[in-house]
Amino acid sequence: KINPDRLWDSLMEMAKIGPGVAGGNNRQTLTDEDGEGRALFQKWCEDAGCSMGLDQMGNMFARREGTDPDALPVYVGSHLDTQPTGGKYDGVLGVLGGLEIVRTLNDLGIKTKHPIVVTNFTNEEGTRYAPAMLSSGVFAGIHTQDWAYGRVDAEGKKFGDELSRIGWRGDEEVGARKMHAFFELHIEQGPILESEGKEIGVVTHGQGLSWTQVTVTGKDSHTGSTPMPMRKNAGLGMARILDKVDEIAWSHAPHAVGAAGHIDVYPNSRNVIPGKVVFTVDFRSPDLSVIEDMEARLRVEGQKIAENMGLEIEFEKVGGFDPVAFDDGCVTAVRNAAERLGYSHMNLISGAGHDACWINRVAPTAMVMCPCVDGLSHNEAEEISKEWAQAGTDVLMHAVVETAEV
Amino acid sequence: KINPDRLWDSLMEMAKIGPGVAGGNNRQTLTDEDGEGRALFQKWCEDAGCSMGLDQMGNMFARREGTDPDALPVYVGSHLDTQPTGGKYDGVLGVLGGLEIVRTLNDLGIKTKHPIVVTNFTNEEGTRYAPAMLSSGVFAGIHTQDWAYGRVDAEGKKFGDELSRIGWRGDEEVGARKMHAFFELHIEQGPILESEGKEIGVVTHGQGLSWTQVTVTGKDSHTGSTPMPMRKNAGLGMARILDKVDEIAWSHAPHAVGAAGHIDVYPNSRNVIPGKVVFTVDFRSPDLSVIEDMEARLRVEGQKIAENMGLEIEFEKVGGFDPVAFDDGCVTAVRNAAERLGYSHMNLISGAGHDACWINRVAPTAMVMCPCVDGLSHNEAEEISKEWAQAGTDVLMHAVVETAEV
Ligand SMILES: NC(=O)NCCC(=O)O
Ligand SMILES: NC(=O)NCCC(=O)O
Repeated sequence: KINPDRLWDSLMEMAKIGPGVAGGNNRQTLTDEDGEGRALFQKWCEDAGCSMGLDQMGNMFARREGTDPDALPVYVGSHLDTQPTGGKYDGVLGVLGGLEIVRTLNDLGIKTKHPIVVTNFTNEEGTRYAPAMLSSGVFAGIHTQDWAYGRVDAEGKKFGDELSRIGWRGDEEVGARKMHAFFELHIEQGPILESEGKEIGVVTHGQGLSWTQVTVTGKDSHTGSTPMPMRKNAGLGMARILDKVDEIAWSHAPHAVGAAGHIDVYPNSRNVIPGKVVFTVDFRSPDLSVIEDMEARLRVEGQKIAENMGLEIEFEKVGGFDPVAFDDGCVTAVRNAAERLGYSHMNLISGAGHDACWINRVAPTAMVMCPCVDGLSHNEAEEISKEWAQAGTDVLMHAVVETAEV
Repeated sequence: KINPDRLWDSLMEMAKIGPGVAGGNNRQTLTDEDGEGRALFQKWCEDAGCSMGLDQMGNMFARREGTDPDALPVYVGSHLDTQPTGGKYDGVLGVLGGLEIVRTLNDLGIKTKHPIVVTNFTNEEGTRYAPAMLSSGVFAGIHTQDWAYGRVDAEGKKFGDELSRIGWRGDEEVGARKMHAFFELHIEQGPILESEGKEIGVVTHGQGLSWTQVTVTGKDSHTGSTPMPMRKNAGLGMARILDKVDEIAWSHAPHAVGAAGHIDVYPNSRNVIPGKVVFTVDFRSPDLSVIEDMEARLRVEGQKIAENMGLEIEFEKVGGFDPVAFDDGCVTAVRNAAERLGYSHMNLISGAGHDACWINRVAPTAMVMCPCVDGLSHNEAEEISKEWAQAGTDVLMHAVVETAEV
C-alpha cells in the first residue's frame, strides 16, 4: 500500500503554486505557474531516482527503469494544469499518484520487469487553449503539432511561443514513444461514486464531447435611442440559443448534457446593444449518435433563431472526441486490484474527457476514479478525502505493477 | 453662419486621438487618450482667446468674456470621451460645435453681453465608470464628489485616482459656477430625424433611464460530469432573464426600450458551468411610471427564474435618471433659431441621456439635435454629413447668441 500522508503532503505542496482566490488553484497551462509546478514535479521525480524526458509538446515523462531492457514501459499519469478557478486534485492526483507509486516501490525495493513512466500531459484543461487534452491528442496522432503550436489564447498568444517562453519545449518527437499500457487515476468530477458509497470507479467507457463555437453578429447601437424594432441584439440571440441548448440536452436526458461555459460579449458596454457574442456550446453523451443529433439541432435551431432576429450566425467545431471504450485487459486489471485490496467499487462511464481517452487510441488504457465531495469539480472548492486518494492510488499501483510484472 | 470646413477639420483632427479599430474612436474617459484630447481642446480654446477653468471632477470650462462683468455666462458644450467602440461625433460635435461658435464670433467681431463658456464634461459615456453623465451629475448635486471618486472600473482602478493620474484634476469646487443657461448640441443617435427628413431636432424632453446590475450566482462545476438535474447554471439563468427583459420592454412598446449591453460570465471557461454572471439591464422610457414598472417586473420575474433554477440573484441600481422636460425659454430659443435660419425642424424626445439632462436641474437648458446616418451610434461606423453638422451648429450659435445678448 502507498503512503497516504506523503501523497497528501505532495498534493498540498503542489497546490501552493498558482493559488486561486478561494482555496483552489489557478495554474493554467503555459503560465509561469505551470512552469513552477513542472519544476517541482521534476525535482521530486529526480529525487525518486527517475530520469526525465520532455517532448516537443512539453509532455513530461519520468522513467523508473525496469529489469528487462527490451520491455516497453507502463505509463501512468495525468496533467498538472488547472482551470482558472480549479481545484487541487483534478489531474494533479493522477500525476502525483503516479509519483507515489514510484516512491512506494522504491521504499519496498520492488523492481518491475517493464519500466514505469510517470507522465504529465500539457494543456489538458483546454481553457486557455482549445481543445482540451491537446498534447495527449498530438501524442495520439489526432492533431498535428503545427496546428497545436498555432492555437491562440484570448490575448492572441500562440501555444508554441508560450511553451518556449516558459522553457518547457523539449526535443523529443511527440508520440514516438511506444507504451505497453497506460493507466490514469482521476477524481470522478461527478456525484455517482459518493452517492453510491463506492471507493473506486472502474472506468469502462468515457462519454464523447463536442465543442461548437458560435458567433452571433448583430449591430452595436445605442441602448436608449435605437427603437426596439430596429435592434439587432446579438446578446438576445445568444440568450435564446442558450435556452435551446438546454432543451436539446434535456431531450436526451439522462444520456446527454449540454451548456455553454464560455461567453464573450462585444463591446460589453452598458449602453451598447451587443453587436457580437462568441460562445462555446459543450454537448456530451456516451452515445455518438446523440452527440451528432445535438450538434445538428444546435445548427438548425441556432440558424432559425438568428434569422428571425436579423442576426448572422456562424458555427465552428473547436473540439471534440468520440465516446471511448477502454481496453478490456487494463479495465480488468483495475477491477482485480480493487477486489484484491478490498475496496468497494463499481463500473463507471467518465463524464469528463481525459488524456486517457486519446492515449487509448495508441495503447491499452484504463482509468481509476475516486469520489470527490458533492461531485464538485472545476470549482476551487473541489475536495476529496485522504482516504479516497489512498484507495485510488493503491488500486492504481496494483494495476500498474500487475501490468509491469514484478 | 459658422464655418463648416473649420468645424469638420477639428472633428477629424480630434478623431485622430484614440482611433478605434474600424474607423471610429476608443477614447474612453480618464485614459491617456482622453488626456490627449483634452490638451488639444485646451490649446484650441486658448488660441481662440478663451481662458480655461478646470474643476475637481475634471470638467473643463473655456470662457469667452462678455461685455457685462456682472452677467452670468451662457454655457454650451457636451463631452469628449467615447465608447470603447464609439463614433467620431457622439459628444465631440457638441464640444467642438461650441468652440466653433467662439471662433465664428471672433471672426465677425461680435461681442455678447453674457460670457460664453464652452464645456467638456468628464465621463459622460459611463462605460468605464458607471453611471453615465457622472460629472455633470456631481455638478448638478445629484452625486457627491466622494462617491464619484470612489467609482471603480473593471480593473479596480478608482475614478479619483485615474483623474489625478492623467493630470486633469482641477482645484475648482464642482457646481460652484452659476449658469445663465446651458445649450447642448448632440447627434440624435436614433433614426427619427433622418426618416422624417428634418435637419434639426428641437429637443423638448429626454427619456428616463434605469440601470439595474443583476448578479446571478449558481455553482461552477464540470460541464461534462455534472448531471443535468444537479446543475446550477448561472449562464442559463442570465439567458432566461434577458429574454424576459426583452418581453417586458416590448410590452410597453413603442414607449419603452430594454436590453443588456454588459454581460460578464465567471469563470468563463468552456468546460465550466458558469457559477456567476453579472450583467446590467438598461430600461428607458419617457414615462417614469413605465420605467418603475419595468424595473419592478425585472426584480419579480428575475427572482422567479432564479428560484426555479436554484440560483441566487441580487439586484443593484447602478444608474438612472428621471424623464426630463427642458426649459421652455431655451427650447423656444432653439426653435426660433431653426426657423430664422430656414432649417427644417421637429420636436424630439431624446432617447439617450445627456449632460444637459442633469444641468437642466440647475440652469435653464435645452438641446439641439442633428441626424446621424441610419440612426446608428455607439458604433464605430457612426456617421453624419458636414451639412448636418453645420445646420446643428448654426442653430446652436443663434440660440446661444440670442440668449447671451449681443
Ligand atoms: N477532466 C477534465 O476536466 N478534463 C477537461 C476536459 C473536459 O472538459 O472534459
Ligand atoms: N449620449 C449618450 O450616448 N450618452 C450616454 C448615456 C446613455 O446611455 O444614454
